[in-house]
Amino acid sequence: MMNEIRILGLDPGLVKTGWGVVAMSGSRLVHVAHGVIAPNEKASLAERLLTVFEGVCRVIEEHAPHEAAIEETFMISNGVSTLKLGHARAAAMIAPAQAGLSVAEYAAKVVKKAVVGTGSADKDQVAFMIARLLPTAGAPTADAADALAVAIAHAHARKVRRFGAAA
Amino acid sequence: MMNEIRILGLDPGLVKTGWGVVAMSGSRLVHVAHGVIAPNEKASLAERLLTVFEGVCRVIEEHAPHEAAIEETFMISNGVSTLKLGHARAAAMIAPAQAGLSVAEYAAKVVKKAVVGTGSADKDQVAFMIARLLPTAGAPTADAADALAVAIAHAHARKVRRFGAAA
Repeated sequence: MMNEIRILGLDPGLVKTGWGVVAMSGSRLVHVAHGVIAPNEKASLAERLLTVFEGVCRVIEEHAPHEAAIEETFMISNGVSTLKLGHARAAAMIAPAQAGLSVAEYAAKVVKKAVVGTGSADKDQVAFMIARLLPTAGAPTADAADALAVAIAHAHARKVRRFGAAA
Repeated sequence: MMNEIRILGLDPGLVKTGWGVVAMSGSRLVHVAHGVIAPNEKASLAERLLTVFEGVCRVIEEHAPHEAAIEETFMISNGVSTLKLGHARAAAMIAPAQAGLSVAEYAAKVVKKAVVGTGSADKDQVAFMIARLLPTAGAPTADAADALAVAIAHAHARKVRRFGAAA
């Protein structure tokens, strides 16, 4: 397919890191693959981070995305959770950086707006729209659906940039 | 040297990541090398994390440590700083995990106690004791000194474990 751009979306977490790849040709968006990386909860922190990193490396090898996207950092009231999220996010971001891919960051609201049309959408609405926008994706789990949503948000942002339209 | 154990200490940060390697033979501790990894502040977050990760990978290749140690996570009142520290820490931890090294974690107080004798020591006291304990280290910068301190704390903990003595 000519000018196909494959986008890897990432929804990082130490327990589950969701990933999703979509292919964009012009304004057409097609589901390529998605999945979840779930490190062994009994492993050490370093080992769990390695599992996330290596898992994302494998996805990149297998599906050869051109660009990557991830949700922007956000503060959680709980400091421990914030720290854990930071760890998982870094593990997920280093893999595409190592492969030479740019890693775009989008605020959760921007992702929801791109997929559902409103920044205040809940998880179910996101999952519902993913099933509509990417019918061949089946019924991805919440983590994978969130990852696909980030990929869609990036596809949307790319188009907006390309055509110089207002967001 | 027989039974030499090389320990890599890490003091992660997005602006500067300090590292230090010490060699332990019995109860003797010798400085091997130290340095600082300073990512380009104008680079993207993913690129800076990659710099930290690859920098630590290079240190491991060059100095072939057997084990690694890092300061335990701690909460910073500022959520943004906590998140940044989490990112840098993960980048520094994945490298030894990938090389098959265990990554031990020590609370800042434990590190200070191992080096200075009190958990409430300040940076200057740590740097002073590093110069005394590792005379061939010269005068490492604060980040490298902190990394060497973590390596010393790990050497200390190893001995305590080995001989079954009380901490």
